[in-house]
Amino acid sequence: MIKVGVIGYGYWGPNVARNFHASPGVKLIAVSDLDAKRRGLAEMHYPFIRTTPDPEDLVRSPDIDVVAIVTPVFTHFELARRALENGKHIFVEKPFTATADQARELVDLAAKAGRKIMVDHTFLFTGAVRKIKEVIDSGALGRLFFYDSVRVNLGLFQHDVNVIWDLAPHDFSIMRHVIKEPPTAVSAQGSVHIKGGLEDIAYVSIHFGDSTFIAHFHVNWLSPVKIRSTLISGDRKMLVWDDLSSDEKIKIYDRGVEVNGKTEKTGIHSLLISYRSGDIHVPRLEGTEALKREIDYFVGCLESGSDPINNGQAGLEVVRLLEAADESLKRGGQRVAL
Amino acid sequence: MIKVGVIGYGYWGPNVARNFHASPGVKLIAVSDLDAKRRGLAEMHYPFIRTTPDPEDLVRSPDIDVVAIVTPVFTHFELARRALENGKHIFVEKPFTATADQARELVDLAAKAGRKIMVDHTFLFTGAVRKIKEVIDSGALGRLFFYDSVRVNLGLFQHDVNVIWDLAPHDFSIMRHVIKEPPTAVSAQGSVHIKGGLEDIAYVSIHFGDSTFIAHFHVNWLSPVKIRSTLISGDRKMLVWDDLSSDEKIKIYDRGVEVNGKTEKTGIHSLLISYRSGDIHVPRLEGTEALKREIDYFVGCLESGSDPINNGQAGLEVVRLLEAADESLKRGGQRVAL
Amino acid sequence: MIKVGVIGYGYWGPNVARNFHASPGVKLIAVSDLDAKRRGLAEMHYPFIRTTPDPEDLVRSPDIDVVAIVTPVFTHFELARRALENGKHIFVEKPFTATADQARELVDLAAKAGRKIMVDHTFLFTGAVRKIKEVIDSGALGRLFFYDSVRVNLGLFQHDVNVIWDLAPHDFSIMRHVIKEPPTAVSAQGSVHIKGGLEDIAYVSIHFGDSTFIAHFHVNWLSPVKIRSTLISGDRKMLVWDDLSSDEKIKIYDRGVEVNGKTEKTGIHSLLISYRSGDIHVPRLEGTEALKREIDYFVGCLESGSDPINNGQAGLEVVRLLEAADESLKRGGQRVAL
Amino acid sequence: MIKVGVIGYGYWGPNVARNFHASPGVKLIAVSDLDAKRRGLAEMHYPFIRTTPDPEDLVRSPDIDVVAIVTPVFTHFELARRALENGKHIFVEKPFTATADQARELVDLAAKAGRKIMVDHTFLFTGAVRKIKEVIDSGALGRLFFYDSVRVNLGLFQHDVNVIWDLAPHDFSIMRHVIKEPPTAVSAQGSVHIKGGLEDIAYVSIHFGDSTFIAHFHVNWLSPVKIRSTLISGDRKMLVWDDLSSDEKIKIYDRGVEVNGKTEKTGIHSLLISYRSGDIHVPRLEGTEALKREIDYFVGCLESGSDPINNGQAGLEVVRLLEAADESLKRGGQRVAL
Repeated sequence: MIKVGVIGYGYWGPNVARNFHASPGVKLIAVSDLDAKRRGLAEMHYPFIRTTPDPEDLVRSPDIDVVAIVTPVFTHFELARRALENGKHIFVEKPFTATADQARELVDLAAKAGRKIMVDHTFLFTGAVRKIKEVIDSGALGRLFFYDSVRVNLGLFQHDVNVIWDLAPHDFSIMRHVIKEPPTAVSAQGSVHIKGGLEDIAYVSIHFGDSTFIAHFHVNWLSPVKIRSTLISGDRKMLVWDDLSSDEKIKIYDRGVEVNGKTEKTGIHSLLISYRSGDIHVPRLEGTEALKREIDYFVGCLESGSDPINNGQAGLEVVRLLEAADESLKRGGQRVAL
Repeated sequence: MIKVGVIGYGYWGPNVARNFHASPGVKLIAVSDLDAKRRGLAEMHYPFIRTTPDPEDLVRSPDIDVVAIVTPVFTHFELARRALENGKHIFVEKPFTATADQARELVDLAAKAGRKIMVDHTFLFTGAVRKIKEVIDSGALGRLFFYDSVRVNLGLFQHDVNVIWDLAPHDFSIMRHVIKEPPTAVSAQGSVHIKGGLEDIAYVSIHFGDSTFIAHFHVNWLSPVKIRSTLISGDRKMLVWDDLSSDEKIKIYDRGVEVNGKTEKTGIHSLLISYRSGDIHVPRLEGTEALKREIDYFVGCLESGSDPINNGQAGLEVVRLLEAADESLKRGGQRVAL
Repeated sequence: MIKVGVIGYGYWGPNVARNFHASPGVKLIAVSDLDAKRRGLAEMHYPFIRTTPDPEDLVRSPDIDVVAIVTPVFTHFELARRALENGKHIFVEKPFTATADQARELVDLAAKAGRKIMVDHTFLFTGAVRKIKEVIDSGALGRLFFYDSVRVNLGLFQHDVNVIWDLAPHDFSIMRHVIKEPPTAVSAQGSVHIKGGLEDIAYVSIHFGDSTFIAHFHVNWLSPVKIRSTLISGDRKMLVWDDLSSDEKIKIYDRGVEVNGKTEKTGIHSLLISYRSGDIHVPRLEGTEALKREIDYFVGCLESGSDPINNGQAGLEVVRLLEAADESLKRGGQRVAL
Repeated sequence: MIKVGVIGYGYWGPNVARNFHASPGVKLIAVSDLDAKRRGLAEMHYPFIRTTPDPEDLVRSPDIDVVAIVTPVFTHFELARRALENGKHIFVEKPFTATADQARELVDLAAKAGRKIMVDHTFLFTGAVRKIKEVIDSGALGRLFFYDSVRVNLGLFQHDVNVIWDLAPHDFSIMRHVIKEPPTAVSAQGSVHIKGGLEDIAYVSIHFGDSTFIAHFHVNWLSPVKIRSTLISGDRKMLVWDDLSSDEKIKIYDRGVEVNGKTEKTGIHSLLISYRSGDIHVPRLEGTEALKREIDYFVGCLESGSDPINNGQAGLEVVRLLEAADESLKRGGQRVAL
């Protein structure tokens, strides 16, 4: 029986608690939140648990094996460190930490303590991303050309982080999960439109050494329309993920480009390029709630002693990309090596 | 009666010839094309004109007032220079020239010769762009936040120019036409995926001095899906232009963001931001063929002696943006001042 | 304080109970359901109420003013009759009753007892239908041409009623609410595809005396795609309601048809007809939950003693249309007078 | 060499002439039209043909093998009869004739004269309809449930026929082509909204003896939006044809319904029905112009002496459906046996 305590019962915490509670072999023990109303809600949902305003109670509690940290980013490091120091496994809301250094420290700490870290990159457990990974791993797309992601909305401004830290952790973690090539540099453009605010629109490019593969991300809180779409193009097939579609989230296009030699015409050397256009395939996706699948998987990892795919290292790599994007923003878009 | 000769009768030339021919007060005199088959086509369409393989015939012909140059980019400058030197007005396919220096020289030459240049930025004459300009000029959008353009397709590779020079002239000319603030710097990311080819995907950001306004352009020949969409967002209203929609190309969203003060909560200073969401308006657009409207307008300019909005200077500014984007590409995305 | 008991705590009952509970001036007293599990759920939600397997307990309880009947259609009449006989107001799930005769009897009974009936035509209280009614009442559409509704899906078969009784109550109640002209006849076509089943696809036409206005309804449990769309066309404007759109449920088209006289050409008398095409307007809709608005309105009616728009008579008229559609189905599509 | 004359050079005639002209083994000989301007156009397009205002010239001309009749419906019979009597093969614009009796007479006449009739049901030669036929013939959809077609628009009123005769010939011919079961009865509802006009909106149901298969057609000139969509549902798979989609005209849904026995619960006998939902497949369609494929096929039939699928009998069956729909309209929607 794995005993779990949840720190933070605001917007996302109740979902985390619910899924730990529902996972076989797990016992929800305690919830902490600064706000008495939120604690009241937790008590109504789970009359058998204890609640507390002080996260330290959970972190040090001898009857807790796993601490789930579902609080604002700037608090993650301290809570995670204390939990690891007290021998807990941790489940941490994304982004993992506020700096890459913090993430590195936590990864080291967990290694020494023999404890597991899972960073809540929930999207990796959606039917859509699982299908994308399956398709890419199968080689169906061929040699990859680019990864283009747009996640825009007339959104809720986060008060403590800019739009990159708010929205891009989703896309960076997905991209890192499905693309094998390691990123080597980041450049970013962005702008602040609300006086006293942080960047509310940004464009981030990620580069991959000498590879011609390129990844690009548009994140935006000021768009009149909501778009959540990703294009992944290869020389054999191409894939579009529209996360807002109810019925057709993933489309795989049997389309490609072929080079058939060179020609010379009126003094210009030209490539003879042809386009192939075939069927479109819309695979059915698994419908299970992603967070449920993620937490069940984490519980399985804890039981078997294996490391989750979205471990501390994965969390660190995403934070490093976020940090590099911020650096590039400050330097007017210069490439920042990773 | 304005007498017109058309150089180049390939893909676009016949449309240019047709619209000059149909314009009241214009007489189509001659067509030149290197390809005898294309000349044959021109003769079938307009049995009364003369055709020639040699553009010099048109450029020097005393019975021609206007030379329309509808040939590959790398030939524009020489043909345009010869035409201006021979006292012709010129209509030049976009992009105006292969370098900004060439464009400057032509602008100077035309000024000295007292001749008019129109660069064929056809999109400025569509119902959609005319409506966008009207809406922005009216102040309905309020203070502008950003201009975001996506023009992607599984496209025809141009053999002599990269994807920026192929597709971005449309978007740069439109942006320059509807946005008052002058651009000051350009940065671009891109990649070449076909061995021996040119950039086939690129992301271009345009900056505007100290302004928080930002413009961004995604041009791409390797996308599985065709997208031609532009978002223009302001603090009062927001506009979406989907050029592939048959019925709803322009949507104006009565949506906005308001800052209502500051707050402080658990140690974080926060802005109190609220979102406003109202009706959507889809204006009916004029249906006239853009090229017809453009050429009739050019003829009107010639008759009245006025300078067209899409004159040589406008063409030069677009070429300067293209050139700067290329420079930035070469320098790994560094900002290039204009 | 209005005291409410809810009979039936299956799929919809919990929503009805929740909204009565949340309505100011209402006290939820009791819930009955045959299934002990469902009663357990009700107790968990509302620890202060009493639950019972026997609806008769609620119907006769002296401390209950309103009985909400949220059970299968075939049980409505008996429960409703008993409730009215015991001096309760009733809120009845749609369709009101299994036959028009039953509905008439209940209407009479309520009139004699001085009690109110509300039939749960929830859709009338959505932002979309309220906007449609407002637009039609304002005369903006002009003279109405037709009402065309499609409600299809790969659906859950109801076991005790056919697709007309399952889906058309929504559309019949909406149509009756927004269209002033009284229907006079019904014709229906349909088919049974599952052995031993009931009609799973049907087309219903409703006629309006000598009027040229016509209404048509396509209801279907066997469609591969989900469609919920209604066209309402008039001679001045036209309206499309797409209930599956998140952002643009209602579109009002400034389009119309005009007759400009007659002509005669090559022996044929022809009307000179012209089409007008203007802007499209997408009004923002109220976002409140429809059921909340409906139940608050019912409570208001009870407090003021006024009759709701969706009273027993409205419920009866919908049942009469359903019954007539069934009759027409049996007679191979013949018109059945109302 | 097959020699062709075309009667009628209005909207569609030029397309017919162009495709006959382009077909190998065909020589375009003559065009007739009452309007001198249209004849002028034909002369410009094909300087080598002869033109005439009198169709009788073509019908009797000894140097013409095939007469294409592209004129208003009410003239078809007389022109076709004359052409067949003079030993010509005929290509006739849809609908074939104004009455089924006329169609029967022409079919008989052609049989006696040993001449071929092709009725211009162009849609049968589109990539979309060819794919639909292929899919249905393969048995992929399983046992068919229904055929549901919507063809609506804010349309051009035809002056001499109602909306059924204008739009439904497309859908009736397609349905007859892809569905094997023979229709046995028709019922129709419709309405006239323009004073002095003909039906501008209609709903037509087609029945198939004892079969549970049903076909339904909505044709409409007064819809604010253009819809051209067809659903064909079977117990194994389901197909949607959206003719307005550029990229995804045909979608095949791996969805179905299964009956897994019966149950009895609280006194109601219920079927245990389950729904299956799998992938969606969007096949690539042939892009050739349908009219080109049709005319090349007709030429092939003439050369080989075989009968086209869209022969006089096919044309007759469509006319019979149209006629029956009109009869049903007049009788208030009563079923009319075929």
